Amino acid sequence: MIVIKVGGGKTIDVDAVVSDLAELWKAGKRFILVHGGAETTNEVAEALGHPPQFVTSESGYESRRTDRRTLEIFEMVYCGQLNKMWVEKLQMLGVNAVGLSGIDGRIFEGRRKDKLRVRMNGKRLVIRDDWTGTVEKVNTELIDLLLANGYLPVLTPPGSSDKGEAINVDGDRAAASLAAAVNAEALVILSNIPGLMREFPDESTTIKSIPASKVDDYMEFAQGRMKKKVMGAAEAVADGVGKVVFADGRIESPLTAAINGGGTHIEQ
Amino acid sequence: MIVIKVGGGKTIDVDAVVSDLAELWKAGKRFILVHGGAETTNEVAEALGHPPQFVTSESGYESRRTDRRTLEIFEMVYCGQLNKMWVEKLQMLGVNAVGLSGIDGRIFEGRRKDKLRVRMNGKRLVIRDDWTGTVEKVNTELIDLLLANGYLPVLTPPGSSDKGEAINVDGDRAAASLAAAVNAEALVILSNIPGLMREFPDESTTIKSIPASKVDDYMEFAQGRMKKKVMGAAEAVADGVGKVVFADGRIESPLTAAINGGGTHIEQ
Repeated sequence: MIVIKVGGGKTIDVDAVVSDLAELWKAGKRFILVHGGAETTNEVAEALGHPPQFVTSESGYESRRTDRRTLEIFEMVYCGQLNKMWVEKLQMLGVNAVGLSGIDGRIFEGRRKDKLRVRMNGKRLVIRDDWTGTVEKVNTELIDLLLANGYLPVLTPPGSSDKGEAINVDGDRAAASLAAAVNAEALVILSNIPGLMREFPDESTTIKSIPASKVDDYMEFAQGRMKKKVMGAAEAVADGVGKVVFADGRIESPLTAAINGGGTHIEQ
Repeated sequence: MIVIKVGGGKTIDVDAVVSDLAELWKAGKRFILVHGGAETTNEVAEALGHPPQFVTSESGYESRRTDRRTLEIFEMVYCGQLNKMWVEKLQMLGVNAVGLSGIDGRIFEGRRKDKLRVRMNGKRLVIRDDWTGTVEKVNTELIDLLLANGYLPVLTPPGSSDKGEAINVDGDRAAASLAAAVNAEALVILSNIPGLMREFPDESTTIKSIPASKVDDYMEFAQGRMKKKVMGAAEAVADGVGKVVFADGRIESPLTAAINGGGTHIEQ
C-alpha cells in the first residue's frame, strides 16, 4: 500500500499523476490518494469577496485563518471542485475512485483548537471562532472497506473534531498519519519541487536520501513549510511507514519516478 | 429502507430534518439521504461572475445550462459546501454519515447528452458543450456496503456518464431511480411546499393521497417542475417503490410527519 499526497500547486501535472496512478492501479498496486487545494481556495476566496488571511502560531508556523465562511469556501474547493475533479479523471481512465473528506466516516479525526494564540499582521491575538485542528486519529475502517472492494479512496481535508465538527487540518500531516495507520510501504508527497534541495532553489542540488535518524542534520536545508514536511516525514518513518518520498509532481510518470528512486527518500 | 430527497430551497429547515433523521436512525430505521442545491448554486454562480442560465427542452422542461465552468461551480456547491454541511450536522448528532456524489463509485450512472436541442431566450439552439445527462442505472454496491457497515449515505448529483464524465443529473429523478434500485419501502421528497395542492398555492388544498394508477387524473393540479416530480413518483411506484411522499421540509420533525401520513402520498 502506498499513500500519495498531491499538493494543490497549479504547476502540478494532474493528468500525468492520474494516468500514472491508473496504470499502476490496474497492474495491481494499491494506493490511497490524498490531495490539497490551497492555491485554488485562495483564488475562490478572493473571487467570493472573502480574501484569505494567514496567521502565525507562537511556534512560528503559518496557517490559514479559518472562520466559518472560510471553512465553507475551503470545503467548496477541496471537497467539491478538486475532489470530484480527481475522481472524474480517475473514473475516465477506468479506476473506480471514491472521493471522501476527513469528516465522512470521521476518517481524519482530531481536536478543534478552541483558542488560537497567533500573530496576524504583526499583532498578537487570541482567536476563538476558528475551525482548525490537528489529526490525532485515523479511522481506517471505511478506507479498508473501500480498498477490499476494489475502490480507490481519494481523500481530502477537512477532518472531523471529536464532536463531529468540520476542521481545517494540514493535508501533509493527515497523509502522514494515514500512512502510519495503514502501515504503508511508502508515503509519496508530490509537489512543485523535485525534493529537498541543498541550495534552494537549485534543483540540481536535490538530496537523494536522508536516513530518518539523521533528519535533524538536514533541517538547515529546509525552507518555510518544508521544515514541517521534513519533520513530519521523519515522524511517519518512526511510526512504521516504510519510507517517505518528496518528489516532483510536474513531470511525466511522477509516481513511477518517485517509486523508482526519484526525489528525496527519507527512510530508516 | 427509506430514501429521502431534500430539495435545495432556502426555507427548508435543515436542522429539523437532520435531528428527525438522527433520531429515527438511532432507533434502527435505515435511510439514504439525497440532497439538492440549486438555489445556492445560482447564488454562487452569480457571485463568481458566471450567472446561471436555463434552457427549455423541446418537450417543455426547463433545466440548467451546464457548460464546464457551471459543472465546476455545481460541484463546489453540491459536493463541497452542501454535502459536507449535511455530513457535519449528522456527525455532530452521532450519526456516522458518509457523503458521496454520483460519480464516486459511479453510483448514479447515465448517458451524457452530447447534443441538446433547446430554446434559450426564445431562440432555438443546438448545444454541444453541455454536461448534463440522465440517470439510467444505479450502482448500489457501494451504498449496500456503507449501509451494511453502519454508515448513512448522503448522496448528491452530479452523476457519471458511461465514460466516467461528471454529468449534471436531476436530483429527484436520481433519488427515484435509487429508491427503485434498493427496493425502498418509501421515497420521501421534502421541499418548501406541503405536497400537491388542488389550488396552488392554497396549502389547505393539499391532496392527501393519489393512487399511482390514477396519477394522470391529477396532473392538472401540478404546476411547472411539479409535473415532472409527480410523473417520476408514479414511475417509481410502478418500479416497485412502496410509496412516494411529497412533504413539507419547513416544519418540525418533517420526516416523522411524512412517514405518518403528512403530505401527498402516491401509492398503489
